[in-house]
Amino acid sequence: MPTLWDHRFAQRTHRMKSSAIRELLKLTEDPEIISFAGGLPAPEVFPVEEFVEACTKVLREKGDWALQYGSTEGYTPLREMIAQHTSRYGIEVTAENILITSGSQQALDLLGKVFINPGDHILTESPTYLGALQAWNLYGAEYVTVPSDDDGIITDHLESALRTGPKFIYVLPNFQNPTGVTISLERRLKIVELADHYGVPIVEDDPYGQLRFEGEPLTPIEVLDSQKHHNGHCYTGNVIYLSTFSKILAPGIRLAWVVAPPEVIRKLVMAKQGTDLHTSTFNQMVAYEVSKGGFLDRHVQKIIQVYRERRNVMLESLSEHMPEGVRWTHPRGGLFLWVTLPEGMSSLELFKEAVKQKVAFVPGESFFPCGGGENTMRLNFSMMPPEKINEGISRLARAIKNALASERRG
Amino acid sequence: MPTLWDHRFAQRTHRMKSSAIRELLKLTEDPEIISFAGGLPAPEVFPVEEFVEACTKVLREKGDWALQYGSTEGYTPLREMIAQHTSRYGIEVTAENILITSGSQQALDLLGKVFINPGDHILTESPTYLGALQAWNLYGAEYVTVPSDDDGIITDHLESALRTGPKFIYVLPNFQNPTGVTISLERRLKIVELADHYGVPIVEDDPYGQLRFEGEPLTPIEVLDSQKHHNGHCYTGNVIYLSTFSKILAPGIRLAWVVAPPEVIRKLVMAKQGTDLHTSTFNQMVAYEVSKGGFLDRHVQKIIQVYRERRNVMLESLSEHMPEGVRWTHPRGGLFLWVTLPEGMSSLELFKEAVKQKVAFVPGESFFPCGGGENTMRLNFSMMPPEKINEGISRLARAIKNALASERRG
Repeated sequence: MPTLWDHRFAQRTHRMKSSAIRELLKLTEDPEIISFAGGLPAPEVFPVEEFVEACTKVLREKGDWALQYGSTEGYTPLREMIAQHTSRYGIEVTAENILITSGSQQALDLLGKVFINPGDHILTESPTYLGALQAWNLYGAEYVTVPSDDDGIITDHLESALRTGPKFIYVLPNFQNPTGVTISLERRLKIVELADHYGVPIVEDDPYGQLRFEGEPLTPIEVLDSQKHHNGHCYTGNVIYLSTFSKILAPGIRLAWVVAPPEVIRKLVMAKQGTDLHTSTFNQMVAYEVSKGGFLDRHVQKIIQVYRERRNVMLESLSEHMPEGVRWTHPRGGLFLWVTLPEGMSSLELFKEAVKQKVAFVPGESFFPCGGGENTMRLNFSMMPPEKINEGISRLARAIKNALASERRG
Repeated sequence: MPTLWDHRFAQRTHRMKSSAIRELLKLTEDPEIISFAGGLPAPEVFPVEEFVEACTKVLREKGDWALQYGSTEGYTPLREMIAQHTSRYGIEVTAENILITSGSQQALDLLGKVFINPGDHILTESPTYLGALQAWNLYGAEYVTVPSDDDGIITDHLESALRTGPKFIYVLPNFQNPTGVTISLERRLKIVELADHYGVPIVEDDPYGQLRFEGEPLTPIEVLDSQKHHNGHCYTGNVIYLSTFSKILAPGIRLAWVVAPPEVIRKLVMAKQGTDLHTSTFNQMVAYEVSKGGFLDRHVQKIIQVYRERRNVMLESLSEHMPEGVRWTHPRGGLFLWVTLPEGMSSLELFKEAVKQKVAFVPGESFFPCGGGENTMRLNFSMMPPEKINEGISRLARAIKNALASERRG
């Protein structure tokens, strides 16, 4: 039924697409389907009892505060806790550098609002995080992309991309969504060097960095840039760093943060005032209460154990079941790995066959801002228990073999 | 210290101003100041124990769900509860018409994102809600305004404003922020008639409607429009209706909702995906748990009792203390009233004198999208206990008398 609103949508909505992932997730609500399509943390590791305790304490002791309007910047003790955590590499950051956001998605939206003019080019990895594209498309962003391999963004291709004059560089340094790949230290240093040379700032999006299953953590790009300029004591502010409680505590509370220079924080705060006033005071106080006193570090170790096992099972199952010509990444942390099918095969086509086999994934195409990746897919290993992962990969392998067979017939 | 971000801010940020209210609130953190400047609910009426119970129940029974990612549309039982509540006037609305937002501020932001092209004119009351202007300025909105009196927007001036071709009409029907004034039934009918005649849709923003201290509730504009077109059974969708849990439960949980036709909901959902993915699952489930079974209706009665007394005290104190030439509105609900000083007096100038007298308010200017209102101010009566209201108004009257005296001297 037509309404008076029908022909009044803003032009920017023409670039709005419902996330392919979300649409596909709807198809996979059939409980018999083993879905590797989501990006969900395992609910088994949610610290439910700690939340019960924290909620009760916060409400009974500070209910007046927790249920009231709060400041746009965020709850100060939480910001101080995050600042301290951020400073662990020896770069001094204070609460003034921290803005609490309603999930990292809001951080991406606010960055778009504050920095992107229609037609601005953003330099991204290819493939890159879909949520960033969804946020920035609405501000009229265009993209210049640099391909990645098993060591992350291929910095040999970075310089020519930088010479197009992008507004900023957007990278996911650790266990990237969608590929699971980590940018090597050598390449991080190269990114800092080239970004500095061309005077282009960086957004470093790091939701998964703490979920490292093996090896030593690599220095964040934000720290490398600061070390280059200040002998390692002050935050230069050339790199805006994003992270979140979604993967280390719980996504349902919608809490994330931005580390940025104070001038950028001020602008983001003004934008956030008009966007949602502030992030839930209650959730911030509860997250602070749950996290403090070292609980969060212990809890992350527990998550790592669960996810490491699941990744191992997925890698083993892939080796066992996949036909020749199928390749995949070996992530050392995070929630995802990335499968590349034989050249010429379409993962979108395969999806239909996979659903028949009762298994689901995300076709890779939509992670490529400038096209490509038709033969790729993202698999999530955090959500499903090990036995289901093995069964799911075996189904997926069957679907691929069926598709290859019918291709040969066709 | 300059960073690489400094000259990269988007053009739209030039229209970004920190809310005058928020800046002034910082000045009034001195605990000796009696502040009528905020828009805060009284914390005494927060149902803290009900929240404790609901949090415990939701976490223990459905923690896996409450702490997980959720759907962008919102928690279905909560949407159904709201749909049922919305249908109380006999207009059928279903969960399909409801989107849960992170506070009403987010609803305003999403409406801007989805409908406003740079240069679009929005028709507003003058004065109007500052938060709407803050949200929409960033999408390049311009304004065409219609003045209001004690019966709300003066519909005699509406037609000429409609003929300028605004994108939509924005009104706050009940106990408006900032004036406390309610649009009369006669004028609501006139708005519906003229909006229909010119084919212009309406946004009806109603955060305070349930907080009515006396008299019968007036039919929402959304219902009047539907009655006009469908004999009162179906929602036409020409009016998008906004409301919130902030004033009837607690603002700190950041929960509000939009009632709109399904096609608009779909677009808002896509915009929200890129903006913050979804509103906190946990908060939605807790709000549902607290509200269900009739608690919310009983609780609203309690809030009304508290606020009614405070409004009465403020009105009595104004009558007692204010010098001649000062006028004010007599709101029948809500959180605010509106004071008009003698012509030529500046409330911004007065603010400095008021802070000396240890009392604060919001100067009215910033509520006027196209200028004016220099001699007006907004007073909040919900937050302060009665004895402080009386003392605060006496201080404010003293500040006004001092200002008038020094004007005469000058």
